[in-house]
Amino acid sequence: MHVVVNAAMSADGKLSSRRREQISISGESDFDRVDRLRADRDAVVVGVGTVLADDPRLTVKDDALCEQRRTDGQSSQPARVVIDSKARTPVDAAVLTDEAETYVCVSEAAPVGRRMDLADHAELVTAGDDRVDLLRAFAALQAAGLEQIMVEGGGELIFSLFENGLVDELRVFVGPTIIGGRDAPTLADGDGFVTNFPTLELETLERLDDGALLVWNS
Amino acid sequence: MHVVVNAAMSADGKLSSRRREQISISGESDFDRVDRLRADRDAVVVGVGTVLADDPRLTVKDDALCEQRRTDGQSSQPARVVIDSKARTPVDAAVLTDEAETYVCVSEAAPVGRRMDLADHAELVTAGDDRVDLLRAFAALQAAGLEQIMVEGGGELIFSLFENGLVDELRVFVGPTIIGGRDAPTLADGDGFVTNFPTLELETLERLDDGALLVWNS
Repeated sequence: MHVVVNAAMSADGKLSSRRREQISISGESDFDRVDRLRADRDAVVVGVGTVLADDPRLTVKDDALCEQRRTDGQSSQPARVVIDSKARTPVDAAVLTDEAETYVCVSEAAPVGRRMDLADHAELVTAGDDRVDLLRAFAALQAAGLEQIMVEGGGELIFSLFENGLVDELRVFVGPTIIGGRDAPTLADGDGFVTNFPTLELETLERLDDGALLVWNS
Repeated sequence: MHVVVNAAMSADGKLSSRRREQISISGESDFDRVDRLRADRDAVVVGVGTVLADDPRLTVKDDALCEQRRTDGQSSQPARVVIDSKARTPVDAAVLTDEAETYVCVSEAAPVGRRMDLADHAELVTAGDDRVDLLRAFAALQAAGLEQIMVEGGGELIFSLFENGLVDELRVFVGPTIIGGRDAPTLADGDGFVTNFPTLELETLERLDDGALLVWNS
């Protein structure tokens, strides 16, 4: 399994404002890059916070890329995965439409009624007591044939992935905006490290749109 | 007056961990770059949070750079400025030593006793009722002959400077470390913007040490 985390952050490291409203950080070239990256993966993963805040579809937008996937013997769309400890994904979430396969990873703490509702719309993966055990959940995804994984946030999930040593690559678009805010979501939230900080290696650095794309290896 | 904000942040936009301990984010080349930038300025400005957390000297370290300043008819060291609404700078802070001139900018809310203590060690600038009025404080610094200003943090001060439209240039070293933490200080904290986000222009982008240096114009 190979896990690439992809995100766009402001020049000051924020994913959105303290209101958690989606803010346009990148531009056309970055959208195209993200679309190609999605098309190249078996699954696109987000945390439930992102589903609740943005209601993303997480699908490949370019028809030619979908056609190429079919030519290569794949499904038109990569699978979508929501990490959702308490099963809070709404049944009418855009991520649950039938245009792509969806997995929802829940913990044992998720209410049974919510799990049953979601089971009508997605494959459920149950791993962990109070929170999703990411190592077990990702092992289950791998067992389901999902090898090339892309994670699109948010900051809580990204931190947990680093905490579990699950990140192979981090691709960050740094945009020309200042968002600010001590309560605004950042690229990696959670409790944070206080020692043994994960160290990356800068693979590539390039201008893209009005910002910069940094690709780090883990 | 020209204000350049200079900071080193982790790959996820943090200045330090949630414990506010200083973390080595950059390397030798970046230290040298910062030293040259300091030597090239009339004043180096920090918020009191940085003084309390790190007790920095804020001086130019390279003797040759100090010598060059003297040759150019300047003082050996640029002035140091602390933005300190409540006059909390300890009188034994490294920033108050006599190796360089120091200004402490306080508000009317600073206890008079604290102000009197600090007045023995620094030039006091009083501007603003509850918090330092940055526009007035920076005008006072300019009137004192400080034209080329470098700001070294922390995130609360940097946000306030953007809020007041006082930033001309932002130089950010992005290091190869993940710090994480929803409570860790970021490059721009404060309340944050929710609309009318300041937009920058990417001037240069280069590899430096194990990270990247991004220079943005405001």
